Order: sequence, then C-alpha cells, then structure tokens
Amino acid sequence: MTTIDSVDLYYLSMPTVENVGDGSQDVLLVRVRAGGWEGWGECEASPLVSIASLIAPRSHSACQPVLSSVLGQRIDGIDDVRRITALVRANSFDQLQAAHTLSGINIALCDLLGRRYEVPVHELLGVRTATPKTPYASTLFGSTPEETRAEAARLAGSGFRAVKFGWMGFGTGSVAADIDQLAAAREGVGPDADLLIDAAMAWVGRPDAARARVAALQDFRVRFIEEPFVAEEYDAYREFGAVAKRAGVAVAGGEGCHNVPMALTMMTHADLDYVQIDAGRIGGITEAKEVADAVQAQGRRFLNHSFTSHLALSASLQPFAGHRAEALCEYPVNSKPVSYDLTTTHLSVDADGLVRIPDAPGLGVTPDPRTISAYLQQVEISVQGQTLYRTPELDLVAADEGIPA
Amino acid sequence: MTTIDSVDLYYLSMPTVENVGDGSQDVLLVRVRAGGWEGWGECEASPLVSIASLIAPRSHSACQPVLSSVLGQRIDGIDDVRRITALVRANSFDQLQAAHTLSGINIALCDLLGRRYEVPVHELLGVRTATPKTPYASTLFGSTPEETRAEAARLAGSGFRAVKFGWMGFGTGSVAADIDQLAAAREGVGPDADLLIDAAMAWVGRPDAARARVAALQDFRVRFIEEPFVAEEYDAYREFGAVAKRAGVAVAGGEGCHNVPMALTMMTHADLDYVQIDAGRIGGITEAKEVADAVQAQGRRFLNHSFTSHLALSASLQPFAGHRAEALCEYPVNSKPVSYDLTTTHLSVDADGLVRIPDAPGLGVTPDPRTISAYLQQVEISVQGQTLYRTPELDLVAADEGIPA
Repeated sequence: MTTIDSVDLYYLSMPTVENVGDGSQDVLLVRVRAGGWEGWGECEASPLVSIASLIAPRSHSACQPVLSSVLGQRIDGIDDVRRITALVRANSFDQLQAAHTLSGINIALCDLLGRRYEVPVHELLGVRTATPKTPYASTLFGSTPEETRAEAARLAGSGFRAVKFGWMGFGTGSVAADIDQLAAAREGVGPDADLLIDAAMAWVGRPDAARARVAALQDFRVRFIEEPFVAEEYDAYREFGAVAKRAGVAVAGGEGCHNVPMALTMMTHADLDYVQIDAGRIGGITEAKEVADAVQAQGRRFLNHSFTSHLALSASLQPFAGHRAEALCEYPVNSKPVSYDLTTTHLSVDADGLVRIPDAPGLGVTPDPRTISAYLQQVEISVQGQTLYRTPELDLVAADEGIPA
Repeated sequence: MTTIDSVDLYYLSMPTVENVGDGSQDVLLVRVRAGGWEGWGECEASPLVSIASLIAPRSHSACQPVLSSVLGQRIDGIDDVRRITALVRANSFDQLQAAHTLSGINIALCDLLGRRYEVPVHELLGVRTATPKTPYASTLFGSTPEETRAEAARLAGSGFRAVKFGWMGFGTGSVAADIDQLAAAREGVGPDADLLIDAAMAWVGRPDAARARVAALQDFRVRFIEEPFVAEEYDAYREFGAVAKRAGVAVAGGEGCHNVPMALTMMTHADLDYVQIDAGRIGGITEAKEVADAVQAQGRRFLNHSFTSHLALSASLQPFAGHRAEALCEYPVNSKPVSYDLTTTHLSVDADGLVRIPDAPGLGVTPDPRTISAYLQQVEISVQGQTLYRTPELDLVAADEGIPA
C-alpha cells in the first residue's frame, strides 16, 4: 500500500500581471509525492487563495483544510483518487475555494498514477486509445478591429481551422462596435474556418443585450457563443439559447462549474450545446470525466476549458480523450512565458491541423525546473506565530528530469 | 463625498476547534471605516481563506484582490453598497472565495451607513417597520436519542415554539436510527411545537435514501426537511420534494448559495418551500434582500441562515425585516463563546416567544473589544518578502464602546 507523503504548492507569476482577461499570467503548480513516485497538477486562478485553502485551520467538521483529507491517504489506483476527492468535498464543503485546490491535487494524483503504472492518464480512466482533436486557437480580441483581423489571419495561416476571440470589451459597448470586431475576425480567419466567440459574461442580467447580437453572430457565421451570462442564470441561457439556435448559433458554457452536480444540472437546465469544463476548477480529471461521460450520453458536446500551460491542457483533454476524432478542443495561443514555458514539451498542432494527447505516462509533460525557479513566488502564511505554509524547497534533483537547480 | 478608508479583518477562534458540525467555533470579523464612521460585518466560514481573498495578488482582470474594488470607493448611500458589490463580483469573479469576503464587507458597509444616518439597516433597504419573527432554536442532534430528547425538552421549556435539529450522523446510518432520533426530538419538544430537521446534505447522490425517510418525517410531523442534497442537485430536490410535500413535509434549502442568480435559479428549479440565505455567504445584506424580495413575490418563504454570533444574526434578519410577523427565523442556541460573546448586546427572545430586529442604528449590536482581544488570531501573509496582510491593530479607543484594551 502506497500513501501520500507530501502535497506541495508552487505559486509562479509573471513579474507584472496586467489588468486584462489573460489567465496565463500566473500558475499554481501542485506536486504530490507518494512512495517514491511524483505527479504534477495545476489549479485554475488565484494561487494565494488556493494555498490558504490547503492549510487554513479547521472552522468545523465540514470546513477543514484540504490537506487534512489528502496527506497519508492510500494512492494505489484511480478509485483512490475518486475516494480522496469525495473526502475533500465532504470535509471542506464550506470552504468555497477548496474546489480549485482539490482540482490541482486530483490532476497531480492522476499524473502520479500514470507515471507509476507507465500509462497515459486516459488509460487509467478506461480509454485505451485517445482520438486526436481539432484545436481552436483561443485568444483575446485585438484592441481594434484591425488588430483582430491581423491576429485572425495569422492564426488561420498557421494551420488553425477554428479560432475563438473574446474579452477586451466585446458585448459591453455598442452593437455596432461588436459588429466591427466580428467582421474583422471573420475576414481574418477566412470564409471556411470556424469562428467562435467568448462573451465573457458580458450580458449578466441583460438578456436583451445578448439577443441584440444574435443577427450579427448569424451574419458572420459564429459557430458558438460562449458564456453569455453567469453560470447560474439558467433561464436566461435557455431563453437566449432558443433564439440563438434558431439562427444557427450554438451556445457554450460551463467553465465556471466547480463541482459535478453543478455541471450536470447546468447542461440540462441551461440547455448547453457545448459543455466547457476546466479540469483545474471542476475538481480535477476524474470529476471532469464524470461530466464528459454524461455530456456524451445526452448527445451534447464536451469541450475542455484551457487557457494556461500545456500541463493544464493535457489534463483538460484526458476526460474526453475517447470522444469522436473530429471534436473541437480549446488550445491556448499567446500564453505568457510563465505558462507556455512551464513544461519542457508541448502538445503541438500536427501537419493535419490536429492535436494529439501524449501517448506517454501520466500527462505526458513535465514541468521545467528552470521555469519554476525563474517565476517562483516565495509565500509564507502564519497564524499565532506558527508557520502554516512556506513555499517548499524545489528539491530538483529528485525531479523526473533530474536537472539540478 | 465620503470614501472608504480601511477594511480590516479580524480572525477569532476558540482555542480548540472540535471536529463537529458546529459553525460557531470561529469568526471572521470585518471592520470598515470611512470618513470617521465605522461599521462591522462577519463572513461565514474559513477565516484564513477569506483573508487571503482580500489581498491575493491579481491573477488577471477578473481575478483581483477583493480589497482593490472596495478601498477608496464612495460610500454615501445604500446604492453605493450595491455598486461596490457589483464591482467586487466583476473584478474578483474567478476567485471563488471572494463571495465570502464580500459578504462581510457588504454587511459592514450597511452597518456603517445605518450608524451614520442613525437608522436601522432595514430602513436603508426601504422597510420602515420591522416585524418580529418566530425563532426556531437551531442546534445539533444529541449523540444519543436520550440527549436529543433532553435538549428538545429544555429548548421547548425555555419558550421556543420551534426547534431544529441536525448533523451528528442523521441520515447517514440506518432508517431505524433516524426514527429513534426523530421520536426523541418530537417527544422532547411536545406535540404542539414545530419540529424542523436539517439533513446537512446526508443524501448527496442518494435520492432513495432521502425518500426512505419521508414516512418517518411525516409520522413525527416535521415541518420542513433542510438540505437533503447539495445545492446544485435541483432535479433531486424537485423529485424528492414532490414526495415530501405530498406527505405534508416542506423542503428547505439555499444556505450554500453564494450569489443572487444561484439563489433565484435554485428556488424555482429546485422548487423550494423555504429559501434559506446566509447574508455572510450570499454577498451581504443587499444581495440577501434581492433574494428575499423575489422569494416573497413567488409566494415562497424566506429564512435566514444563521448559526454564529448575534452580529451575523442581526445581519441575516434585515433582508426580510418586512415579511409577515409570523415568519420563522433561525436562531442559534448553544453557540461557542467566541460567537455568543462577540457582541455586547443580544437579540433576545421576548416573553411572547418572538425575536425583534433592533430598532437602533445600523445592525443594533456592537462587537465587544474584550471578546475580540480574547480570541484574536494573529495572521501574517507575505509574498516575496512583502507583507500583504498582518492582523491590524484593534485601535480600541476609537471603538463605539470606548472600552480601552
């Protein structure tokens, strides 16, 4: 029996974090060690808060530090990952941030098991052969339509058959301004590529503003519109969705889901065409797999949400590794160095325009110790003079790559 | 124009926090100061995580420290509270814990405005006269039916017309064991009192286990069963609810809601009879008021969720101050000293068995500096050697009570 020896969190950040919707500017990296094996994961968003969630003193029986449900637990198979995940959910229920912290740990545990048994993570999940996916380049609108057009043309020219734009004020100004951006994006990607738009919750509480854009979305043949509202506005999703679908525009959403019941309920009650799950937020790979199976069973489409490193990208692809080959997947482009350089290898886009999940142990990617060292933020948290968390030593000689610090 | 000068968080805790479902064992107290005025609030659950959420460095434009949307903002009226709340929602969207942190700040801002304009908070919300409420004593099952019976008899004897029991394994063992607890509770409170049961999510993913208890709930005339499932299991709520309602047992839920859309969607999609909102989690008093209005408009019943201090209790009652007089309200009994002694005065149960919202400025209660001093936890959080948070000086001479430290 192997038990979990350590859970270490490393907060990495660009020296300057800009005030834009670019989620690749920092990273919370998770390392789990058990019986001589090691695995790596990544948590979505707000590293310092998730670090606090790992070690925050108990408030009551359903509000415990995440670490207390993980350390010392048995980890010999994928069912142990599911059991530990359920334990964290029960014991840290009232700690809202715990979903994020749990997610990175769940991913690292899956990676550890894959490395130990020398199989890709998706094989642990029962999927022997991973099918390639059609990546859509995921990026932000330019600050002008001209910038958007140039970026769209560059991405289409580099082999992407699908491109997604979002943020940068889209949906929050005039309909005319949005039309200019959509026209530029469509012109840039050309007539044949798939164009996808991320509304980034621009229309929270304003369903009329959402409906006012449907004609333009139809005119520029937008395949799906993502996150028109906040995750919980199911009625708004459904009502807008009915209008959008009549116009041939699908509705995507779900990245905000931070537990499985939330995702399962949202996909039906909000009637999503594309269900976008971030493995770094939903609770990890096994949780995302549960959603992916349910999505497929209902004839909807599962999509990864992924905007940071290729470690997070590989983790986000494992849950739907077995879905049909032509499935779309989100593929970050323009990631900041702290995210892009996090791994020594990358999931590249092949000559045929497809992305393949690594046929290698675990997630098939390994963090680069040089990147960790370069961007590492030293964190210390103490209560009553007792240090509850101090950024752990990197201890690099023991890392898989064996690269000394 | 008055602007917010400071937001200070104080983490208080019992010396020992036991591993039971008693949420009164620690407190995160919020003090906001603006132009010489002061207000106090309280955040639900996991103080250290919420402190981190206040000051965590920006990850991207929708994942900012909560403090950055509050400090320096104008605060002259209740619409400023709503505006600041919306700002935190938008700017800290990807920081899941932000809802908790925001809640305490929103409460403190309402208290500050009430003290400044010398009116109760509910008057700021448009409710001139607060109606008294019928408190239900809210406590945990005993560890044996005998303990439950004795506690039920004690509470009924001390004037409570309604008593709620929960946790301590109820719903997770055999149906027979639950029947023993229900029988003891009913016997203890007597035939005329309202008996309420908190299932504490015992039946997550197990709707059969929930249905198996309906006959017993009916036999012992339980008025409502609370939180049979996790908040997002709307279909399970609705299906179980249909069975329970036919048996004369109402369904309560909602304490897990951490934003307004979540609560509005849950009450209709889960078809709740009682919508329980914790002002310390939903986003504060103005957010809870928005839910309370919608609940009333739909003919459902609003309930506060409150299990800690009388500061949190007063905050949780303001949103439905204007609802009909015979409305139930949750009333914590058996709170730990860190919670009960937090305020110098309390919202007592009158001779007529009712609880009155204080007819006094703000929340009508004031934190006791001696309690703060006695239970204060010194916290320090640093990143790259820079201190981002250190427990602020209590600066007691300036406190309303003027009690020196």
